[in-house]
Amino acid sequence: MRIEGFPASPGYAEGPLFDLDRPPISYRSKASAAEEEAALKAAIGNSVSRLTSLVETADGDAAGILEFQIAMLEDDALSIPAFASIGSGQPADAAWRRALDAEIAGYESSKQDYFRARAADLRDIRDQVLRALSEDGETAAPPGAILYGEDIAPTRFLETDWSRGGGIALKAGSTASHVAMLARSRGVPMVVGLGASADKPAGVALLDAEHGGIVFSPSPAEVGAFRQSSSAFAARQGKAQTFLAQPAATKAGTAVRVQVNISDPSDVDGIDIATCDGVGLMRTEFLFGKSLPDEETQYRAYRKVLEWAGDKPVTIRTVDAGGDKPVPGFTVAETNPFLGLRGIRLSLARLDVFRVQIRALLRAAVHGNLKVMFPMIATAEEYAQAAALFAEEQTALAARGVAHELPPLGIMVEVPSVAIAPEAFANVAFFSIGSNDLTQYVMAAARDNAVVAHLNSVRHPAVLRLIASVAAFGREKGIPVSLCGDAGGDPAAIPALLEAGLRNLSVAPAQLAMAKAAIADVSV
Amino acid sequence: MRIEGFPASPGYAEGPLFDLDRPPISYRSKASAAEEEAALKAAIGNSVSRLTSLVETADGDAAGILEFQIAMLEDDALSIPAFASIGSGQPADAAWRRALDAEIAGYESSKQDYFRARAADLRDIRDQVLRALSEDGETAAPPGAILYGEDIAPTRFLETDWSRGGGIALKAGSTASHVAMLARSRGVPMVVGLGASADKPAGVALLDAEHGGIVFSPSPAEVGAFRQSSSAFAARQGKAQTFLAQPAATKAGTAVRVQVNISDPSDVDGIDIATCDGVGLMRTEFLFGKSLPDEETQYRAYRKVLEWAGDKPVTIRTVDAGGDKPVPGFTVAETNPFLGLRGIRLSLARLDVFRVQIRALLRAAVHGNLKVMFPMIATAEEYAQAAALFAEEQTALAARGVAHELPPLGIMVEVPSVAIAPEAFANVAFFSIGSNDLTQYVMAAARDNAVVAHLNSVRHPAVLRLIASVAAFGREKGIPVSLCGDAGGDPAAIPALLEAGLRNLSVAPAQLAMAKAAIADVSV
Repeated sequence: MRIEGFPASPGYAEGPLFDLDRPPISYRSKASAAEEEAALKAAIGNSVSRLTSLVETADGDAAGILEFQIAMLEDDALSIPAFASIGSGQPADAAWRRALDAEIAGYESSKQDYFRARAADLRDIRDQVLRALSEDGETAAPPGAILYGEDIAPTRFLETDWSRGGGIALKAGSTASHVAMLARSRGVPMVVGLGASADKPAGVALLDAEHGGIVFSPSPAEVGAFRQSSSAFAARQGKAQTFLAQPAATKAGTAVRVQVNISDPSDVDGIDIATCDGVGLMRTEFLFGKSLPDEETQYRAYRKVLEWAGDKPVTIRTVDAGGDKPVPGFTVAETNPFLGLRGIRLSLARLDVFRVQIRALLRAAVHGNLKVMFPMIATAEEYAQAAALFAEEQTALAARGVAHELPPLGIMVEVPSVAIAPEAFANVAFFSIGSNDLTQYVMAAARDNAVVAHLNSVRHPAVLRLIASVAAFGREKGIPVSLCGDAGGDPAAIPALLEAGLRNLSVAPAQLAMAKAAIADVSV
Repeated sequence: MRIEGFPASPGYAEGPLFDLDRPPISYRSKASAAEEEAALKAAIGNSVSRLTSLVETADGDAAGILEFQIAMLEDDALSIPAFASIGSGQPADAAWRRALDAEIAGYESSKQDYFRARAADLRDIRDQVLRALSEDGETAAPPGAILYGEDIAPTRFLETDWSRGGGIALKAGSTASHVAMLARSRGVPMVVGLGASADKPAGVALLDAEHGGIVFSPSPAEVGAFRQSSSAFAARQGKAQTFLAQPAATKAGTAVRVQVNISDPSDVDGIDIATCDGVGLMRTEFLFGKSLPDEETQYRAYRKVLEWAGDKPVTIRTVDAGGDKPVPGFTVAETNPFLGLRGIRLSLARLDVFRVQIRALLRAAVHGNLKVMFPMIATAEEYAQAAALFAEEQTALAARGVAHELPPLGIMVEVPSVAIAPEAFANVAFFSIGSNDLTQYVMAAARDNAVVAHLNSVRHPAVLRLIASVAAFGREKGIPVSLCGDAGGDPAAIPALLEAGLRNLSVAPAQLAMAKAAIADVSV
């Protein structure tokens, strides 16, 4: 029986199902309150050591999640109510569950997206300690298993041994979740949105995360067909690696620039600069985690990437907070955050924060080939205001004798108004099409909402028409146009993007080889 | 000193400021718990009688709000905790406030928009009873006053005597709120989004709700200029009335069809059918209030309007729930409801509900000139599915021998994909441009969010270009195109809409005369 969902990270996996939702083995209560207290202390300690060992191998985003969880576990505020319950006669597992559930309810009822998102971390912490308490040594999924359940915690992903294959199949989940991002960067096949299943599947399953489906209790014919698709995919991937070292070009010999998207300066550590044409998108949200970053911290982060890239361009996007990226003390709670105060709108509303980033960028520009772009531009006035701020800060730095340089200033094309009426932007240095946001606005379908995922397609004629018209406008005016959304690294979308006239794509580092291979198959 | 906000209901008002946020006069506590209890009972009773007398004069939406509040006040669940507190020694005002605050906190922390929106009603109930307790006879605003404050409760609007002028000036507020809708339909000038003021203004103020501003402590010169603008506005309004009875036409003699938008069958009671070209938009959300409506209820509502309109067309929109219109038991909670499961998407996901509406429409069609349109269409597949359901239900009704007729089926043009690539919709019976939603998606700026209101303009070149291209496509294919958003009734937008090629607008009944007058001023 095949069930359809949505591919969140491409690939194939054949293996035994591991039930993510099974209840932990029950806890055996101790003889005295002192023993209960010792058990809970030990379980918390074990959880902290486990997280600490995970953090050592984790990168950027993942490390951030784990460090937050460690900080929470080490904070007495979480454990004091649990120890108090133990004092009044409760066993350790019930005491911990009760204390955490109360905390989780508080986070869940918050009106702030930021705190509601943290509730997932607290549930993760709660279950980790409960597992440690029950000494449930069998909770780790066996290597090669397909993890199947409602949703999956980031720590579960990080502690799983993916070296011998395996994959993730979720009834709910989202292609935009943290785990989905981790799965794509590690190459773990993942499918989301499979929906509730009538009966509880078991045994071996076939996960097709190239198209987005899973087969339970497969017939021999299904296994045969699956292995054929899986080998073909592996062959394409193997072949793709041979493309990595070469410049990208189509079958017809048309050169295509392929750059990388990075979210954190440490992302460049694993990339050979010779394999790409520079950085098409460096996000700066990583700087805006728990507090607002100072100029020096930003300057150092930008400089690191500029020096790594040498002569090749590094396109840094000014902070795109808001939307699905809340920052405490900076973004505001909104009923429809994707249609609210985010990106350049927020920067222009908070000049105190924006000017710090502008100064850091102007100073970093002397260390390489910097380009700066503004996210969520909707009107020409917004671009003019942002450019004027760069000029003001440049004058101020010059007056103080600080080394700096004014980088070319471009814009993201993600608000439909810009793509529909680009003539108002004939004065920008470059366009970078943000296909994820552009698609969600053109189709009016949020990119992180599984129930409207069938509408959210970059290959819809309306989206491709806007992309083609921006490409044509750029050619006519001599303004470079690139694309830095997920579509740029998606082999299924690449032919349509090149046919629409694009010759410059920016992709996730893990997709570089596959993107170059897909480009070589296109005949434009 | 003039402060700028956003016009929510056009007009001018000059008058004394009335502070909406002033604390109620303090309550004098009684000698015994029995007296406290009697005082609270009397205050609740007074509040109920007051609301009951208001409900008699209120129409559609307003009556719904009041009836909900009466039901809450009469429900013991709200008063029992208050009486309990009185029993344990609290005065009536503190007891009531505490009981209500606890209830309000519960509603506010809900993840469902529907319940969060109800928190405002509970605050309104709390304050009404507190005012009744303090016997604060002076809380009613004097006739002609400008009500100024953070926000305004619907009951405050309804109990105010607007017969001698006056207006509303809000620091927060939204042009999409219930009170804003009431103000527009009653012609009460209203400005929102004025922001916090440094000092507390008092005395006489000048409210310019045509452009969206207020002048505190005006100079004689300011008063003079204001009165001139105000008279000019009144003159235009007076002149507009003379246009009401005539068919609309531009200065150049081009005929323009002007239809009305209605939200409830009772809306037609005050409209002379001779003054309009039919109903361009009949919303059906009013049917989906507390529970899902049965076929008979829907059939009767549709039939009433069809019979009222006679030969003139009545365009009924299938239910557009979701977005900012949650329906318990039907819509789902989402992080970005405007980009989620709403309109036709929800109907196609809930065929049980949709088929009931389809049958009611097919049966009602025999009673007049019915047209049916689908909201939030993004792809041609959605239209095909909806049309197929009409065909299926038609066959079923025919088999049962039930009188029915298949109405022409059209679509709303509000998702940008349809306007950008209309060629996929050459088979629909008509297009109706929903300019409010189209604008918010093209500009990526929610229509109910004051902080991005400056971006949300139907007159942005990108929005007008899409409108023009839909109008051109309709002309080329012989498909009628109309527009039923707020822009259709906005004299400032009408010239641009006619220049974009539209010849068919649908407006709020209160805007009919002004729209016809504005059309007569255009030279196309």
